[in-house]
Amino acid sequence: MRPTIGIVGGGQLAWMMAPAAARLGLPLVLLADPDDPAALLVRDVIDGRPDAEGLRRLASRCDVLTVEHELVDVDTMEELAAEGHAVRPSAATLRVANDKIRQRELLAAHGVPVAPWTVATDLAGVEAFAGEHGWPLVLKRPRGGYDGRGVWVVDDPSSAQAVVDEVAGEDLLVEPKLPIETELAVLVARRPGGEMAVYPAVETVQEDAMCREVVLPAPVSEQLTARAESIGRRVAEAIGSVGMLAVELFVVDGEVLLNELAARPHNAGHVTIEGSVTSQFENHLRAVADLPLGSTARRGPCAVMVNVVGEASDPRDRLAEALDVDDVAVHLYGKSFRPGRKLGHVTVTDADVDRARARARLAAARLVEGPPS
Amino acid sequence: MRPTIGIVGGGQLAWMMAPAAARLGLPLVLLADPDDPAALLVRDVIDGRPDAEGLRRLASRCDVLTVEHELVDVDTMEELAAEGHAVRPSAATLRVANDKIRQRELLAAHGVPVAPWTVATDLAGVEAFAGEHGWPLVLKRPRGGYDGRGVWVVDDPSSAQAVVDEVAGEDLLVEPKLPIETELAVLVARRPGGEMAVYPAVETVQEDAMCREVVLPAPVSEQLTARAESIGRRVAEAIGSVGMLAVELFVVDGEVLLNELAARPHNAGHVTIEGSVTSQFENHLRAVADLPLGSTARRGPCAVMVNVVGEASDPRDRLAEALDVDDVAVHLYGKSFRPGRKLGHVTVTDADVDRARARARLAAARLVEGPPS
Repeated sequence: MRPTIGIVGGGQLAWMMAPAAARLGLPLVLLADPDDPAALLVRDVIDGRPDAEGLRRLASRCDVLTVEHELVDVDTMEELAAEGHAVRPSAATLRVANDKIRQRELLAAHGVPVAPWTVATDLAGVEAFAGEHGWPLVLKRPRGGYDGRGVWVVDDPSSAQAVVDEVAGEDLLVEPKLPIETELAVLVARRPGGEMAVYPAVETVQEDAMCREVVLPAPVSEQLTARAESIGRRVAEAIGSVGMLAVELFVVDGEVLLNELAARPHNAGHVTIEGSVTSQFENHLRAVADLPLGSTARRGPCAVMVNVVGEASDPRDRLAEALDVDDVAVHLYGKSFRPGRKLGHVTVTDADVDRARARARLAAARLVEGPPS
Repeated sequence: MRPTIGIVGGGQLAWMMAPAAARLGLPLVLLADPDDPAALLVRDVIDGRPDAEGLRRLASRCDVLTVEHELVDVDTMEELAAEGHAVRPSAATLRVANDKIRQRELLAAHGVPVAPWTVATDLAGVEAFAGEHGWPLVLKRPRGGYDGRGVWVVDDPSSAQAVVDEVAGEDLLVEPKLPIETELAVLVARRPGGEMAVYPAVETVQEDAMCREVVLPAPVSEQLTARAESIGRRVAEAIGSVGMLAVELFVVDGEVLLNELAARPHNAGHVTIEGSVTSQFENHLRAVADLPLGSTARRGPCAVMVNVVGEASDPRDRLAEALDVDDVAVHLYGKSFRPGRKLGHVTVTDADVDRARARARLAAARLVEGPPS
């Protein structure tokens, strides 16, 4: 009737799931560090790690297992599913989402457009690809990268050799450095039976390989939006996702190409809290609890989210300055201050995207700049 | 910089404040029963009652004291303020908000329109008022009533005598039974320095003296709306409220008259969570923390809230049925099921008020009717 949902992780994604779960009356239990942000909003926290022992403790206390990050012992998730636990997303979905090489193999076979790619373990492999596509290239660790970690742009054989040395013979995904026009993301909620709800595509604006801004809806042609949303559906079906799926995409030469996946709520979807009828966090819970999905329609003409990334001061000390900006929704994750760390985000909804962007940037800037008030 | 806010009470109002406080990074501490709804979302709970001892324990742990209900030892709140604690709203505001006779005395002197009234302690007093205004009359306990408790409609001297006997010589507020056309409510956020933000007036629909539906904006003339909002501002200034103030109003013969007050977030304002740029819960926290207030503008054309009042079944067992209604936001307070108890509410935003009302009523009805799914 009312499943208890066990979440692996206690970061900002679980922190944003918690109010949605409370509203719906869905009990939560976290596998997390008791000092994690989400532990402030969830009473039932298992102090443990996402290893076999932790996952089994969590499974014994909930009806549905889900995740807010990928760094989880997938083999144990698979064993738990085989023993009858509801594991959503499945181990198979997590394996694809966690591995950029598997993704390309599987999704290209399902007709999802991907950039040219190969796998190399040494300089010869990289150079062979460069012979076909030219320099510069992008080398990626297939697993574990985020916010630009595990991704290198290499201009020539000597810089490629340095990366090969660094990963010490592990597989590297090799791609051309694409002339990216725009980055998009599509968020898809999917229930165990296959029912889907697709959010309108958003534009994601990166800086130093970290997502900085998101614009809902993406300011691109209807044709590109439709392509992106269609790819989102195809990916969700191909990998059998349950819960939220974020599909990050590149627009290159007017074509939409797969970048990467995350089988969970995603930074690109924070804008849905204010911008959409149902947030990605509520739809993640509804999907994994196998409840009817909520509308993904926009509440208004547009919404812009800007991340709050640690700079000069702790954003919590600059709240008054940010709230002095009109109509801004401030979300501070309760994480300790560190330069370069995502500490929160702000969202502005407005009829005009430029006004929304200007106000969101102003509020985010006020939270991180200058001396504390 | 970042005040810790102490809330007296742990019911649904504190439960709805908790996510807003988390988003803003404002630490909360509750004086509540650890089984209260809000204790699910707030880690720091003082297990105690709102008496002198409890309030002093709370004050020692927070920077700002506020309330989610009126049943608080106001004398202690006054002492704490005299000792230098920030008590918001003040004891003086609480005394007026808690006493319907004081309200009328004070507010009539400030030019707020009120219905004819008197105070009676015996049948002779009631009959004298009836001689002037006729039967039926409404008799009210000046303090402690809610959802129709402490309010009696009397048609004749014998039924009036029964009420006089029941209250055993205490003061009774006596008013004519007014031909009410519409009930309105105005919500006002006010900071310590006097800055105010007024929400558009809402219509409140009562049934058996309990609020059942709220419509934002109230479907009445601009003139009545403007009158209501002006009264809201005047009341907030007259009683020096800090935090949210709810002013309930009657429309009688085209005039707007004071009904009663609550110096806290209020059921009439739950619709602001989805319907307004800033919810009443966030603005309450911003006001008592002396932070800039958020916009009270509507997010869209209209929103309708319907309370979920316990009937045949526990709403938590009927979630799937309710979520199958399009675009409905479900809020279940986590309170144990009891017929007649407010267990939650649902809100629908739509361009058309009739469609919004129909969907909200349908979702609320599905939550309470029939056998569990």
